[in-house]
Amino acid sequence: MKLSGAGELSLLEILRKRFAKRSHDVILGIGDDSAVIRPQNSPMLFTTDMMVEDVHFDLSWTTPFQLGFKLVSVNVSDIYAMGGKPKFLLLNFSASNDTSVDFFNHLFDGIETAMKKYGVSLLGGDISSSEKIVLSATVTGYAKKFIGRRGARPGDRIYVSGPIGDAACGLVLMKSVKKKIPIELGKKQKLPLSWDTAFPLIERHLMPLARDSQPLAKSATAMIDISDGLLIDLSRLCRESNVGALVYSDKIPLSKELRKASEYLGLSPLDLAFGGGEDYELLFTAPAGIKVKAFCIGEIVRDGIFLVDEKGNRKKASIKGYQHFKI
Amino acid sequence: MKLSGAGELSLLEILRKRFAKRSHDVILGIGDDSAVIRPQNSPMLFTTDMMVEDVHFDLSWTTPFQLGFKLVSVNVSDIYAMGGKPKFLLLNFSASNDTSVDFFNHLFDGIETAMKKYGVSLLGGDISSSEKIVLSATVTGYAKKFIGRRGARPGDRIYVSGPIGDAACGLVLMKSVKKKIPIELGKKQKLPLSWDTAFPLIERHLMPLARDSQPLAKSATAMIDISDGLLIDLSRLCRESNVGALVYSDKIPLSKELRKASEYLGLSPLDLAFGGGEDYELLFTAPAGIKVKAFCIGEIVRDGIFLVDEKGNRKKASIKGYQHFKI
Repeated sequence: MKLSGAGELSLLEILRKRFAKRSHDVILGIGDDSAVIRPQNSPMLFTTDMMVEDVHFDLSWTTPFQLGFKLVSVNVSDIYAMGGKPKFLLLNFSASNDTSVDFFNHLFDGIETAMKKYGVSLLGGDISSSEKIVLSATVTGYAKKFIGRRGARPGDRIYVSGPIGDAACGLVLMKSVKKKIPIELGKKQKLPLSWDTAFPLIERHLMPLARDSQPLAKSATAMIDISDGLLIDLSRLCRESNVGALVYSDKIPLSKELRKASEYLGLSPLDLAFGGGEDYELLFTAPAGIKVKAFCIGEIVRDGIFLVDEKGNRKKASIKGYQHFKI
Repeated sequence: MKLSGAGELSLLEILRKRFAKRSHDVILGIGDDSAVIRPQNSPMLFTTDMMVEDVHFDLSWTTPFQLGFKLVSVNVSDIYAMGGKPKFLLLNFSASNDTSVDFFNHLFDGIETAMKKYGVSLLGGDISSSEKIVLSATVTGYAKKFIGRRGARPGDRIYVSGPIGDAACGLVLMKSVKKKIPIELGKKQKLPLSWDTAFPLIERHLMPLARDSQPLAKSATAMIDISDGLLIDLSRLCRESNVGALVYSDKIPLSKELRKASEYLGLSPLDLAFGGGEDYELLFTAPAGIKVKAFCIGEIVRDGIFLVDEKGNRKKASIKGYQHFKI
């Protein structure tokens, strides 16, 4: 059945029933003019992100489940990047009348799976008809002590929470495969590369997991999540902290899958790591001399952003990353 | 200049500067992964609404200022409808590369004007390219004691906070005029109807003011804002409260402008009041015998929704109102 056969009210009823189970902190959930939550004695975090068809995702090789999962992840990642714990979610969904109810249900399967993973509850949302699919989510969370982008000081070490470049490589792979790979069903698929190599890369692109900052939050002086690219996101952190950075190119953690796949694709894994986005790993700084369970990739200096190669040669970094409205 | 000439980062910088002044309750505003607000010892309200080009608005006769103003109003209205005070706003904006920076700036003029009117602060947002313009907003607020849809009891009187049907009539007028009327500039315009008659109606459609419920909140037992139509919104309140309603047709407050304009248009003002939406007046119930500064239009009964004419004849109401994905 198509959405035009179901109608807004029956779709809202589906959602209301599906998400009826509420967190203790929700006084009033879906179904009124506003949701109501209990006050908490902690600073509250807010973030919002949108995903637009043919800009953020391509339905010829993205399943609705993957889309829903990713929408929640990218928002949760912004809460983690503040040292926070995600808690509540609001959604906006618009799609054409021709969209199937099946699509709608699978989108919410992905959303619900991610919600459970991150422990967030749905407070409400809005649905509308439109031409292309446009999704947005607002996620709130709490942090007794938040970590902004402003706290990095010269001498601090720079860390990433995991390998970088996998998502960008996964995107290149998906663009070459150009068909849906329903990784959420756990089925292997025939690809030009071995499944063991391709899977972690395409998973990182299609269904990225936001990285919980709790184990890192104590030592971090500044933090940002890598959504647009390592160097552009580092440059943002540096600008807010009014500092510069040295990045040791040979210290960037690159997964063995990224190395293998980029060799096959004829791409430089380091270029993918520096310029590609959507890894949703955390990039943060911590004072020198503190033990941190993450990959140290450089250090904060007074000014400029430089790449340093294994011989110690410096060159000014060329800051690349995705920007909307730039053609 | 077009948005594609400016680029996302410079647009974000415009917004960041423009909305740099922060409320005392904002610890960290626009420019980090998440915004951070101080905890408040009060239940918190959340609502979100989207507006899609060619579904919610037609750019051939809507100015960007009007669009921005309305986006804030429709969300604030949902906070007022809970007896709450609006406080914070998050925005999502997507538009084509060809959209002008002028359009973008005027949209935010309208948003800012509404923000000042309602006393809300911008916490953050996201911008993206897309084909058609899609806007969404999330508004939060506080209510020591909130008013839901569930508290109506048989015997309660039903009230509306102001005249109904003006917005629907304004929409019909705009559809017949089919050109922009920049009412925000205060200039009168030549129309088939006198300006004094047309202005309040088209203003109600283009730039509705959300109705503050503070003066009414003490007596109200249940409340909803009229966004989709008097009868459909009343039926929602009744369903949640598990009650019915008698609506006295001759008690519906109709403005003299609506009467004049609907005579000119050959429409029934009462049909516009019952079936039209977007008035953003409040519909609420209060116990009988209490003095309420609003228009009493009926009373709550056990079951069914009936219209009662001036002779006391009852007929079952036909519930009409806008529904997405119904064609």
